[in-house]
Amino acid sequence: MAITLGPNQYGKAEVRLVTVQREGTVHHLKDLTVSTSLRGDLAATHLTGDNADVVATDTQKNTVYAFAKEAPVGEIEDFALRLGRHFVGSFEHITGARILIDEHGWNRISGHDHAFSQAGSEKRTTAVTVQGDQAWVVSGLDDLVVLKSTGSEFHGFPRDEYTTLAETNDRILATAVTARWRYQGDGIDWATSHAEVRRIMLETFADKHSLSLQQTLYAMGEAVLKEREEVAEVRLSLPNKHHFLVDLSPFGLKNDNEVFYAADRPYGLIEGVVLRDDAEDAGLAWHTLAAF
Amino acid sequence: MAITLGPNQYGKAEVRLVTVQREGTVHHLKDLTVSTSLRGDLAATHLTGDNADVVATDTQKNTVYAFAKEAPVGEIEDFALRLGRHFVGSFEHITGARILIDEHGWNRISGHDHAFSQAGSEKRTTAVTVQGDQAWVVSGLDDLVVLKSTGSEFHGFPRDEYTTLAETNDRILATAVTARWRYQGDGIDWATSHAEVRRIMLETFADKHSLSLQQTLYAMGEAVLKEREEVAEVRLSLPNKHHFLVDLSPFGLKNDNEVFYAADRPYGLIEGVVLRDDAEDAGLAWHTLAAF
Amino acid sequence: MAITLGPNQYGKAEVRLVTVQREGTVHHLKDLTVSTSLRGDLAATHLTGDNADVVATDTQKNTVYAFAKEAPVGEIEDFALRLGRHFVGSFEHITGARILIDEHGWNRISGHDHAFSQAGSEKRTTAVTVQGDQAWVVSGLDDLVVLKSTGSEFHGFPRDEYTTLAETNDRILATAVTARWRYQGDGIDWATSHAEVRRIMLETFADKHSLSLQQTLYAMGEAVLKEREEVAEVRLSLPNKHHFLVDLSPFGLKNDNEVFYAADRPYGLIEGVVLRDDAEDAGLAWHTLAAF
Amino acid sequence: MAITLGPNQYGKAEVRLVTVQREGTVHHLKDLTVSTSLRGDLAATHLTGDNADVVATDTQKNTVYAFAKEAPVGEIEDFALRLGRHFVGSFEHITGARILIDEHGWNRISGHDHAFSQAGSEKRTTAVTVQGDQAWVVSGLDDLVVLKSTGSEFHGFPRDEYTTLAETNDRILATAVTARWRYQGDGIDWATSHAEVRRIMLETFADKHSLSLQQTLYAMGEAVLKEREEVAEVRLSLPNKHHFLVDLSPFGLKNDNEVFYAADRPYGLIEGVVLRDDAEDAGLAWHTLAAF
Repeated sequence: MAITLGPNQYGKAEVRLVTVQREGTVHHLKDLTVSTSLRGDLAATHLTGDNADVVATDTQKNTVYAFAKEAPVGEIEDFALRLGRHFVGSFEHITGARILIDEHGWNRISGHDHAFSQAGSEKRTTAVTVQGDQAWVVSGLDDLVVLKSTGSEFHGFPRDEYTTLAETNDRILATAVTARWRYQGDGIDWATSHAEVRRIMLETFADKHSLSLQQTLYAMGEAVLKEREEVAEVRLSLPNKHHFLVDLSPFGLKNDNEVFYAADRPYGLIEGVVLRDDAEDAGLAWHTLAAF
Repeated sequence: MAITLGPNQYGKAEVRLVTVQREGTVHHLKDLTVSTSLRGDLAATHLTGDNADVVATDTQKNTVYAFAKEAPVGEIEDFALRLGRHFVGSFEHITGARILIDEHGWNRISGHDHAFSQAGSEKRTTAVTVQGDQAWVVSGLDDLVVLKSTGSEFHGFPRDEYTTLAETNDRILATAVTARWRYQGDGIDWATSHAEVRRIMLETFADKHSLSLQQTLYAMGEAVLKEREEVAEVRLSLPNKHHFLVDLSPFGLKNDNEVFYAADRPYGLIEGVVLRDDAEDAGLAWHTLAAF
Repeated sequence: MAITLGPNQYGKAEVRLVTVQREGTVHHLKDLTVSTSLRGDLAATHLTGDNADVVATDTQKNTVYAFAKEAPVGEIEDFALRLGRHFVGSFEHITGARILIDEHGWNRISGHDHAFSQAGSEKRTTAVTVQGDQAWVVSGLDDLVVLKSTGSEFHGFPRDEYTTLAETNDRILATAVTARWRYQGDGIDWATSHAEVRRIMLETFADKHSLSLQQTLYAMGEAVLKEREEVAEVRLSLPNKHHFLVDLSPFGLKNDNEVFYAADRPYGLIEGVVLRDDAEDAGLAWHTLAAF
Repeated sequence: MAITLGPNQYGKAEVRLVTVQREGTVHHLKDLTVSTSLRGDLAATHLTGDNADVVATDTQKNTVYAFAKEAPVGEIEDFALRLGRHFVGSFEHITGARILIDEHGWNRISGHDHAFSQAGSEKRTTAVTVQGDQAWVVSGLDDLVVLKSTGSEFHGFPRDEYTTLAETNDRILATAVTARWRYQGDGIDWATSHAEVRRIMLETFADKHSLSLQQTLYAMGEAVLKEREEVAEVRLSLPNKHHFLVDLSPFGLKNDNEVFYAADRPYGLIEGVVLRDDAEDAGLAWHTLAAF
């Protein structure tokens, strides 16, 4: 028996970067949280503490800030690719990199050149993996909270000795969408693609009459794949944020789907992948990303 | 020496209430978090465990849900007044109540009757205090995050042996507004007033050239009082969410207010009250509210 | 009608300070979060942006770090008094200061001189207010989570049309203690006093047969005041962290106080003050502290 | 091109379960958060909303509570195996299950039979995967926060144009250990194994003179594998919780590793796997677990 080092990576997590670009008196804001991880032949530092190949995480942070100055940040996918390729191309023993970026939205306060209010907790995300000459881009969004107050049913499920749930033909359906989609092909317009995927998922959530959250999940992924050929695969994690009808009968009141208790825990959790059967190979695209 | 019971209150905190109102096929959503606290002659339960006067917190919760059915919730100030007056009017030894409500915003998904997306983390709030026949209303908002990328200076401050901060004529100014304002008078249109106070504060933050966050705070409060006569007093708590210019000189780069590090902690914290000199007496309006 | 500036304060919040003291090869750790707020004649910065009297919050932060080097930090009450008196004594228009310190505990990893593991989420706290020559000390603890699995009842409460809660002679009682106590007199041994107050509250929670959480609250405060004459007043905020008995009857099972659902929200919230009738006057001790 | 359903699972997340076991007047507490996920032939609900094979997540929750009554919960690994095997064995189209359990610790308040205080934020965890007749157990711990105030160096790293970090021979090293280890073999004493793995990791962190956090990570994993033959593999995620030396030179003070600023973000993040070269095959042990 011998003990060995398996897969590993290291980097700087959650570098908070805000940039201001000026167009005359009009300012443009980017608000990003960047996490870098490097991979490669890193046995020495693990086994002996020899750091000759360890690009310091502080250096990684500095590189993020310097790169943000050397050229406009642009779309987060492009910025992540620039960073990933730099690290892999600049250090002999660094053969791979994973760059995660979250973008936080800001809205212009009406009529003002340089004043903004934060858009909310939803985040646009990307996870770029570079390995040698290859690169994969998985973009997404976090914390898009949606609710429909009708158009959702749940019935026909099996009943065993532990089943007490009543069937329903009309319930609130609410979730906080975490979506990740893998891109394929070249020349992608990242901003448009993100906006369109988001729009398609929102509209599908709203339009699709739902017999289960699984059905909604699949419909959302399917709609994206039908309309956006640059998307190879969609992964969705949808908590079922339960809104329970309050029993008002002890007070002589009827509750006709009017008054709900929004529960915190537990919650249902529906996770699934929708993909093209002719999608490009995923390669390392999903390697070490939070799994679902 | 004797030991005595001082001020006290008890209730149910963070009752999560979602209501759906139907107007034909168009649904309207209210998403509230309600906390009730009762006050009165409650020595018995403290000293002997005799609960004859203790309206159970479970009953308080039930009352919130039942009231949401018995009549439309309406504006949070009205709902809080209804609840507070009910508790004070219904139980002999309950002489006071404090009702806190947070309202969470939802936007309609475009073109849809019954599908919504959550508006973000900002909350509309109210704190209603009822004591006997009297009532006070303090409304507000939490977590309105704003930033201006220029139009903010900070200089002229005293320098002692511990001062290292450089003066600046151009910095990012960012804060998460927590505002509370006390109403006076009758016949207030709560929804309009809230919307207007919010608009005035946003615009003042954006327009006011700032020499200190204190100056911005005062200007925001003053503008509200000038335009809204139903507001007696404004209390603001403004964290200075520091955005530090990254020193890029080690990399041979100039940073002309373009690249910033958004720090988490520590942060400045500016708190103040702006009020009319002829305001109605505050009475118990602020009693046991989080102080600033 | 004129608009005026009311009470205000400003400072640096959540300065994270860790100090290491060496006694030969044995290291001692202090892990503090310090927040400073200054008060005084600060109208100029609010009204005109003249900062001549505004001790920069960055300077306040520097002072915290420098003071931590100039003399051992010692007990948090002493460190807060040193800081508060420095600010009030050093700047002409600064007439008051409020210093908040949270201390985070660490345990020595057994047998090791300089290795530690974090003790948990409970925090020791102090809030020191200095005004001119006077000073007040309010110490406390946050997030001491306790539970008793029997020895708690709740019955005899009034029943109205909204009451559904069953009476119980045996329930789980759990809470997260937030306690604040005001000191009086001189020559207090802060560390011993804190440890003893904590011990007394823990033991009273455990020993006292409870007919209501209010009764437990009062008993905890009363026991502290009986044993610790340096304590003038105790304020407690006790969430009732509900543990609901799960109804297992649909599965043909009896639940004899064995299986519980620990609910997040809503929760009961019991707040109260226990004090000596001959306590020193509170002065500004509680001014702008979170109220309960 | 066709669109297809890929891997998927669904279940109930974060079921809060507290059990009380009585041994005479002495009570024993278990405080668990249980998440169940089921896998299998679930295309129908995704594609058509036919729920005939969808064991409701509410039923999953009920099963957790009922099982906690039907037999003592015991160690979390055993309870997770019972639950996983039940779901896979009871429903024709459910072929796999993943059960996650977090155990929250409580300490007995000294001398008391039925009163407890919460042990802190550290959690004992398990992730059990059942697929047909097979089962894998990955246990671990979250949020074990440790710090050593000396015995840590970092130097010899490469310097490029973006490197500014100074080399150091003496720094604070602090991390919040997230560890996961995969078990192999039979007849494992889960409680002892967990306690021993934890002890070994703590002592190795404390004892190992560190030239990099990577070296510490590897040493911790290696020590576990050397002493515990039931462990096939250890995965560690170690944030480098930076404690920066405060520059006191502007105040004429020397900072001899005494005064530190504990930073929140960004932080280094070191992730790695240490394994036996003759370990049992991992199978589905890590499938859909958070990756690192």
